[in-house]
Parts: sequence; structure tokens; C-alpha cells
Amino acid sequence: MSDIKGLMQQLGENARVASRQMAVASTQAKNQALLYTAEAIEASRQQLLSANAEDLAAGKAKGLSAPLLDRLELTIARIDNMIEGLQQVAALVDPVGEINDLRYMPSGIQVGRMRVPLGVIGIIYESRPNVTAEAASLCLKSGNATILRGGSEAIHSNQAIAACIREGLNKAGLLAAAVQVVETTDREAVGHMITMPEYIDVIVPRGGKSLIERISQDARVPVIKHLDGICHVYIDDGADMSKAVNIALNAKTHRYGVCNAMETLLVAESMAEEFLPQIMQVYDEKDVELRGCEKTLDILPGIETATSEDWETEYLAPILAIKVVSGLSEAIEHINAHGSQHTDTIVTEDYARGMRFLREVDSSSVMINASTRFADGFEYGLGAEIGISTDKIHARGPVGLEGLTSQKYIVLGDGHIRK
Amino acid sequence: MSDIKGLMQQLGENARVASRQMAVASTQAKNQALLYTAEAIEASRQQLLSANAEDLAAGKAKGLSAPLLDRLELTIARIDNMIEGLQQVAALVDPVGEINDLRYMPSGIQVGRMRVPLGVIGIIYESRPNVTAEAASLCLKSGNATILRGGSEAIHSNQAIAACIREGLNKAGLLAAAVQVVETTDREAVGHMITMPEYIDVIVPRGGKSLIERISQDARVPVIKHLDGICHVYIDDGADMSKAVNIALNAKTHRYGVCNAMETLLVAESMAEEFLPQIMQVYDEKDVELRGCEKTLDILPGIETATSEDWETEYLAPILAIKVVSGLSEAIEHINAHGSQHTDTIVTEDYARGMRFLREVDSSSVMINASTRFADGFEYGLGAEIGISTDKIHARGPVGLEGLTSQKYIVLGDGHIRK
Repeated sequence: MSDIKGLMQQLGENARVASRQMAVASTQAKNQALLYTAEAIEASRQQLLSANAEDLAAGKAKGLSAPLLDRLELTIARIDNMIEGLQQVAALVDPVGEINDLRYMPSGIQVGRMRVPLGVIGIIYESRPNVTAEAASLCLKSGNATILRGGSEAIHSNQAIAACIREGLNKAGLLAAAVQVVETTDREAVGHMITMPEYIDVIVPRGGKSLIERISQDARVPVIKHLDGICHVYIDDGADMSKAVNIALNAKTHRYGVCNAMETLLVAESMAEEFLPQIMQVYDEKDVELRGCEKTLDILPGIETATSEDWETEYLAPILAIKVVSGLSEAIEHINAHGSQHTDTIVTEDYARGMRFLREVDSSSVMINASTRFADGFEYGLGAEIGISTDKIHARGPVGLEGLTSQKYIVLGDGHIRK
Repeated sequence: MSDIKGLMQQLGENARVASRQMAVASTQAKNQALLYTAEAIEASRQQLLSANAEDLAAGKAKGLSAPLLDRLELTIARIDNMIEGLQQVAALVDPVGEINDLRYMPSGIQVGRMRVPLGVIGIIYESRPNVTAEAASLCLKSGNATILRGGSEAIHSNQAIAACIREGLNKAGLLAAAVQVVETTDREAVGHMITMPEYIDVIVPRGGKSLIERISQDARVPVIKHLDGICHVYIDDGADMSKAVNIALNAKTHRYGVCNAMETLLVAESMAEEFLPQIMQVYDEKDVELRGCEKTLDILPGIETATSEDWETEYLAPILAIKVVSGLSEAIEHINAHGSQHTDTIVTEDYARGMRFLREVDSSSVMINASTRFADGFEYGLGAEIGISTDKIHARGPVGLEGLTSQKYIVLGDGHIRK
């Protein structure tokens, strides 16, 4: 057995033991651990900044790109955010132990469901060190133990944050092993993490598509997957022109590098002539590059031609593909064939077509007359978000505390037996 | 590519196409398909019996055991049950399209969740041919397409039932590929089924522990697992003696070969002297073999000694392991260490200890003062059951129609954009 395998199994065993304590920990103890962690981070600003400086220096020496270095950096504002995030999670309602749908059955027993933690959650993420505090806090609040594997380039920052979390757990009387950061930067560690169903109950990868695809491919543990966000806005026949322009503008230009930004705009044929020149004007002001189908080019000559590849590309950039469709049916077909089951919206004033879009588009968030940018745990009222699932098993759409739990059945009787 | 691989991929493609139609099929069309199938089975009794006779003859020639031959047999009563089951599923409320928790958010949008089918469900089962109709009906009602792989010994019976289902689907105007039975009996087919995530969204294995373990081990598709049922009854300090005796008797002797039967009886030390002789008397009348810990033997001399293996054995037979424990804490520890996270019950009159048992026992069904035999989709009001999950991801406990669905987010706005 390799040393790393042994190390990971040890982390797994520790986590399993801690998960049993966490599952029955009181709401007060969990909240105290979060607030003590926030205090420890406040008191360790200097240590965090110098650990991060070490990572940044090593990153520069290794020639990391500017965006990567930016994500790696712990600024004062980002440390403030971590502290605030911990306080916010402490303020959320504890999902564990919540009982739903308790009903009397004809036999006389009462049957209901009680929310319980999943057990041990493995988080695999890339350069952003603030994920360490964010992910740990959500797992902790939902009564789970966590094993965190951050990017090797952030190892010193992650360890410094982990020390604060351990302090918080200790002060609250909880086992420090409830949150463990993998200390080795060896890639082999990830391979073990995703193949230890006896110790880890679910893996949440946070990072680019290639990381998530690689993990899903090899995992022997369930993975809460979030692949790309190829989001659509469909402008329906008879749509309100100002809603259409506002939503199409917001969905594309509010932020470019996010998974819930629109990448393809679909326009009903009957609307194209009036709508396309208007939307082109507002996009031009934002320097958005447009690529269109043939019919779009007839109306907007001079823009690039969209190739079939464009319908399946997540640009994450000021680029937009535009397609004129015959109507609702073609729009739904296009979305279900080329989208990524993330977030899609229809702009319409028609009741029946809105309802049909809602029912037939097979995406994790389906919207009427709202910007795709709303697909987000905070906007949905979840209070926090560990990721967005484009899967159907277990969780779909933004995943908050509830997505880190399960429900067991409870039965209350008074000596009832089965006849 | 082997022929069987090609065959399975073809089934997978057909199922994927059919699943899109099923996802948007009306409740009426789905119910009609179920009722037309029931009619087709009614009209095909003779064909079903002769196909089954063929399987039985082959089974006898192959030397199948008497219990296996019994499970394989389609009696008149079992055909009646299939027909009734189809009618019952038609009468259930359609879960697809149900909208929950639609609420206004501070931004002005309304956010809620809509229930959607999972897609394509693979069912892998053993000798009982009636599972074909049962599993197909639940998948159909929940808007999923199904690929069914039954035991090779039941192939003629399964194909005869499948023909009736195809007739029902056709008459209702739905694609026959919504329910496909694998025609080859080659074992290789199962290997392909569990490794085609592009065509199959979830696998539900129904059968013995070794089948399920083998499938879980190799699957690249999520599996709704149900391993063994090592269920406990714990008689708490101060328990009502008549409830204790009734529940312990019912949980063990109501039926022996079922997963929700009790296999281990835990007794608080303070209760042992009074309770054990009483319960021994009623078990003696039923010829239940008792195996006890040392303390049990002090009170019930002459019974077998339980070995450590007994605490982890699913007897499925008139055998019971008995352990005297110091109290609630030891009972919970024993259950969480040796149980199978299936179903466990406490007999108690004490509020705090009952609540603690409910919270701390990590099983898919946890009960107070009720027989473990109640752990069942029908008793829980689910209307039907495709299996019992001892997992935590996606579904836990009895799985009915809801367990075959997921929830997507829906957002209703009126031109809302993100600020």
C-alpha cells in the first residue's frame, strides 16, 4: 500500500468517526464552531496573508496565468467575505432533524420523514482558497464531516484556513476531524478520495469542466456534478419588446464568466425583424460579438456566421450565438438537444406557451420572463450554495444545505403491529 | 463491438428517445397505457400460462430448487395480482409536473420546484416474472422509460408480459420503446446496462445481496441499492410489557423471509429478567430458535450462544439473536455498528429516550412502538414500491413513484433582471 493510500484511508477513518458525532451535534454546537472559526480567521489575518503570499510567490515562479493568480489571492476583502459567510451560515436554519409530512396511516401508525446528514462529503476544488471556509461551513452546518482537497497551488493558504476551522471546532467541543484538509499535493490523493465509498459518501467537485469530467469518469462514489452552463433565452412570438431586450441584455452582459450567463439567444421568426436590430444596438454598446444563423444574418448583415459548434459552446465571454427559430417547438427542441440542462428562459406573454416551456425544457432551472442570471442559491433563497447540479439524481439545480442531507422515514406507533 | 453491446446500445437509444416522449406524456395517456396493459394481460392469460409453463419445464430440467421454481411460477392468483397492480398504479396521483414551494423572493421573482422524471431506468431482477409488470408500471406512471432485464430462467414469461405492455402503450398512442425487455439471456447484457450512463440514468437492482453487490461494484450509472435487512427491536427500560411482547413477536414471526423482519432483539438490562422468559414462551410456540449473549443465557439457560457473526446475519428464517444491553446508548451503538441501516424500532414509554433513538439511529426507517414489518411502501402510503433503499443519496427507505423522479427549479418573473 502506498503511503498516500494509507494517508487517505486514515483521513477517511477519522472523517467517518467525526461524522457520527456531527450527525447528532446540537444546532448550538455547530453554530458556535462556525462563529469561533470566524473569530479565529479574524485573529489570524496576518498568518493568512503571509501563507497566501507564499502561495502567490510560488505561483508566480511557476508561471501561473494572471487570472489563476487572481483567483489564488486572499485579499482583505476576501477574508472579510469568508468571515461574513461563516456568520451567515451560522444564522441559517439547521436542516438536520427537521420532520416533514408526518401523517396518520389507515393502520394507525404515523409516518413522516426526518432530515439527516449524508455522512462524509469530499470536496475537490481548484485555486480559490476561500472555498475552504465556504464548503466546510456548509458541510458542518448540515451535520456532515468533510475532506477538502484544494489545488496544490493554494496549499499554504488552505492549511492556514484549516487551522482556524480546527480551532473553531475545538472551542465548540466538536472533533477537529469533522473538517480535514488533505495535506499532500500529490495527485494520487484525488484518485483515492473518489474511490473510497466506505469512507466518503458523496464527492462535490468545484472547478472547470475537465476536472469534473475526469472525476466523474473514475469515481466509485456518487458525484454531485456541475458541467457547463450553455444557457438560452427564447424570445417568443408576441413577447413584450422591452422585457425581451432587458432580459437578453442582462442574461448576456451582467457578468460574462459565470455559468448562468446566456450563451445562445433564440428568436421566434415573427419577432426577428423587429427585435434583432434593437438588441444588436444594445449589445454593440457593450462590445458583445454576435454570431448568427443564416436567417439572423439576413437581418443583421455583417455579423459572423455561427457554425454548429457555436450552439454547443460555453463562451464565458462577450460572445453570443443567435438563432432564428420557427416558434416554441423548435426552441424547445434546440435547447434540449444543444443545451447543458443548466438554465433556460422564455420571454412570452402567452400563458399556454409559457406553461409548455416550463414543462418541456429539461433543465435544472427553467424560467419565464426572468434573466438566467437568477439561477443561484442566494437568489433562490437557499441562503448559500455549494454548487449547481445539472444531474437529476439526488439534487438538481443550486445545491444548498438541503442538498447535503437525505431524509429517513420515521414511524410513531403505540404498540402497533402488522396484521 | 460485440453483437450484445450493439444490441444494448440500440435498446439504450430507443429508450432515450421514448423517455423524451414519456416525460411530456399526459396523465391520461399514461393511465390509459396502464389500463390497456391490464386488459391485454386479462386477454392473454392462456399465452402467459403457456409461456410460463415453458420456463418452468426448462427450470425443472435445469434442476432449479423448489423455492426458485415457486418464485418463477405464474399462478392465476399472481396474474390477478398483476392486473390489480396495474389498475392501482393507474389510480395513483401523477407525480410529474407537481409544483412545490413556489414562493416570492426579495428580487420579485417566484421560485419553486417542479417534479420531473429521471429519464431511463434500468431494472435488473431475478426469477419473479410479475416484477416485469410491477416495475414497468411504476416507471411508466412516473414518466420514465424502462429497460428490464429479468432472470434468464423467466425469459418466456417476461416476453409474454412485455408483449402485453407493448400493446397497452400502442393503444394509448405512446412509443412501445418506453418499456423494453432485454431479449438476450447472455450475462454480458447486464455488464453493458450498468455502464451506459449516456442511455440509462439509474439502475434499480431487485434481488439477493450478491446480485446487488456485484452490480454496485461495477456500475458506472447510479444504483438505488437495497442490501440486507438486519433489523432490530430494542426493549427500553420501563417499556410496556404487552407492547414489547406484541411487537417483538410480530417483527420476528409475521413473515420470516422478508427484509423488514427483526433479526436481533436488544433488551435493556433492567427489563431482561421479566421480559425474556415471557418472550421465550411465545417464540417457543412458533418454533423460533433463540441465540443469546451471555447475559441472556443466564436468564434463558439452554438456548444457543450467539457468536459475533450472529449480530451481522440476516437469517430470513425462524432464528433470532438476543442481546442484553445496559441501556439506550449501548442499543444505539450496537444498531449503528452491526445493523444494515434498514429498519429499527424502540419500545419505550419514555419521551426523551424515544426522541433520542429517532434522531441517533442511522437507518432508513426508525420507529417508536411499532413493528419493523411496517417498513413498506404500501404501509407508508406511497401506493406502490419499487424497492427499499438503504442508501442516503437520492432516496432512502421505501421507494415509490417520487423516488423515480427529480425536482427542477422553476422561476416565474415579469421581465425581472438581476441588478
